[in-house]
Amino acid sequence: MTSRILVMPGDGVGPEICREAVRVLDVLAHDHGLDIELDEALVGGAAVDSAGDPLPEDSLAAAREADAILFGAIGGPKWDSQPRDKRPESGLLRLRSELGLFANLRPAILYSQLAHASSLKKEIVAGLDIMIVRELTGGIYFGKPAGQGTTDAGRREAWNTMRYDEDEIVRIGRRAFEIARARGGRLCSVDKANVLDVSQLWRDVMNELATAYPDVELSHMYVDNAAMQLVRAPKQFDTIVTTNLFGDILSDTAAMLTGSIGMLPSASLDAAGCGMYEPVHGSAPDIAGQGVANPLATILSVAMMLRYTLERGDLADKVETAVGAVLDRGLRTRDIMDDETQVASTQEMGGAIVDML
Amino acid sequence: MTSRILVMPGDGVGPEICREAVRVLDVLAHDHGLDIELDEALVGGAAVDSAGDPLPEDSLAAAREADAILFGAIGGPKWDSQPRDKRPESGLLRLRSELGLFANLRPAILYSQLAHASSLKKEIVAGLDIMIVRELTGGIYFGKPAGQGTTDAGRREAWNTMRYDEDEIVRIGRRAFEIARARGGRLCSVDKANVLDVSQLWRDVMNELATAYPDVELSHMYVDNAAMQLVRAPKQFDTIVTTNLFGDILSDTAAMLTGSIGMLPSASLDAAGCGMYEPVHGSAPDIAGQGVANPLATILSVAMMLRYTLERGDLADKVETAVGAVLDRGLRTRDIMDDETQVASTQEMGGAIVDML
Ligand SMILES: CC(C)[C@H](C(=O)O)[C@@H](O)C(=O)O
Ligand SMILES: CC(C)[C@H](C(=O)O)[C@@H](O)C(=O)O
Repeated sequence: MTSRILVMPGDGVGPEICREAVRVLDVLAHDHGLDIELDEALVGGAAVDSAGDPLPEDSLAAAREADAILFGAIGGPKWDSQPRDKRPESGLLRLRSELGLFANLRPAILYSQLAHASSLKKEIVAGLDIMIVRELTGGIYFGKPAGQGTTDAGRREAWNTMRYDEDEIVRIGRRAFEIARARGGRLCSVDKANVLDVSQLWRDVMNELATAYPDVELSHMYVDNAAMQLVRAPKQFDTIVTTNLFGDILSDTAAMLTGSIGMLPSASLDAAGCGMYEPVHGSAPDIAGQGVANPLATILSVAMMLRYTLERGDLADKVETAVGAVLDRGLRTRDIMDDETQVASTQEMGGAIVDML
Repeated sequence: MTSRILVMPGDGVGPEICREAVRVLDVLAHDHGLDIELDEALVGGAAVDSAGDPLPEDSLAAAREADAILFGAIGGPKWDSQPRDKRPESGLLRLRSELGLFANLRPAILYSQLAHASSLKKEIVAGLDIMIVRELTGGIYFGKPAGQGTTDAGRREAWNTMRYDEDEIVRIGRRAFEIARARGGRLCSVDKANVLDVSQLWRDVMNELATAYPDVELSHMYVDNAAMQLVRAPKQFDTIVTTNLFGDILSDTAAMLTGSIGMLPSASLDAAGCGMYEPVHGSAPDIAGQGVANPLATILSVAMMLRYTLERGDLADKVETAVGAVLDRGLRTRDIMDDETQVASTQEMGGAIVDML
């Protein structure tokens, strides 16, 4: 059965990194029997510019029909002063919500070849391999009521609601327990249950779920402590599960521990395993169009797509092995370069992976 | 005029570290003309045990009458299963709220003598000196509505409200601009304005305030990016201002960058400059009563008290100089020890500071 893949390049470096990832998909299709059909759609600032909407109707329709989406990056100073619903970010948020992509998987892996790039001491981060499972369609990102108004005294006020119900917590919790089981068997749930009612429910439901996963060791940590522990001793973590907002903050912290955010992929999955795959890094408007962006996070997002949606773990392994081999050969884009390595353009890096495959 | 200081030792290592800080206050009173009167009150788990309330009426009354509070630490596994209003934390939250302690100052300073303790590379953190100004009596910690209920479908749900009005933002903003002006002149306001309405109001008000502080350079950063930048290149920051929840997370991240959280003091101030002073570290129940806790964060909290409430900057300098001198001599409590230094007990460390003074 042919899988439909929608490419949404977005803004900034999005188009150039997606181009390299598509070359990888092409070679897998031609040489390794991957049965796919590619389509492309506008999203983000590019869609605001051409259609006045960061997620135009036809883009959303195409996304609904796709089995998997390869997403580049969105945003840039050009659109920062737009009203919130016309900002690139709101296209992304609507996409997550409309497609029910509630499970955001953000691995933070340190490639041994790039250990020098971390701002942390080598012994603290060598071998780092954490999976952060972030709830992506609930919590304060989507809670109602939300808005601005005025108090009785005529002063401006504004509010957002952090809300979860147990069904939302159960579905992300199950996904996280399953992922932890397939990894190191340890799951740390991060909340702020000493202050927030919504965190207390989160913690209660995680504890209830735990009885169905006796082989997974569940622990709990407050978010402030988790942020500290990530800096102090990140290798203590195996799999982390947390809410939308805490996951936003902690997954970026964890990513930066590696020092090579240009290497990190992510997946956003729905209940059926369809999903959106994108690099963790942003649209980097300052270097867009120069051919210096690192395409490896996007190429590794293709590997996640192969594993989680296309059920071709064999090809996912191939892509990941190719990335390792290219790093071993000393090829580096500018962001991960050091004195002993050789600088490659976006296209050269993509080409090197294609050649390996 | 005699200043009234209330000591609230709390739980875990709280009593033993407060004891050393009180010795420091005593010597300043006897030898350096500091005019103070000391009193003591129960708070936290200790107060739950003896009065069934983490902030008994008479403790609150004593706190209201004090010019400054020296606070130890609260909490421990013993009280974790209590209902939320009987937990040590809620005593602390009520104290902040009842006394109007809206401005939480959390410096993250790396002592050159302790640079080895950081999990970050030396060149990334050497000379680190950040001040985080956290809003402490609003936001999601106190927003209404908050609670648990059931949905129409009979499922449990829970919610908290992140709310600010412009008066709350103005008062913390002014305080932060003034602090930034007295430091490096750069203020970074951290929010999530690309997603949250309440952050958009926060950002708008900060921008409005900026016109009154032309000598301070205001910038804005999203909280996820701020968490990354703290790990990547923390020295880019001078003063950070942010909301209650983001400040909770980011100030702990920043503290941990130094690797010596046993050294970090904090202040929580009201509109008049009265305040509560406490170490950033927690109650550490695992080492309580062993005489190994580091009293320096509490002693440095006394220095902050001297500077911000007692208006004795001269004595604050003396205390800070004494701490530096004791570190120079190679004296260390267990938490900050290395191969070349000499281990000191809580009491020996306190005594060394007292001797210096
Ligand atoms: C762009 C923004 C809305 C988004 C988020 O906060 O979820 C981003 O930071 C991310 O983590 O994917
Ligand atoms: C104990 C807890 C309620 C408190 C907070 O979240 O404010 C603590 O983490 C702090 O930062 O002082």
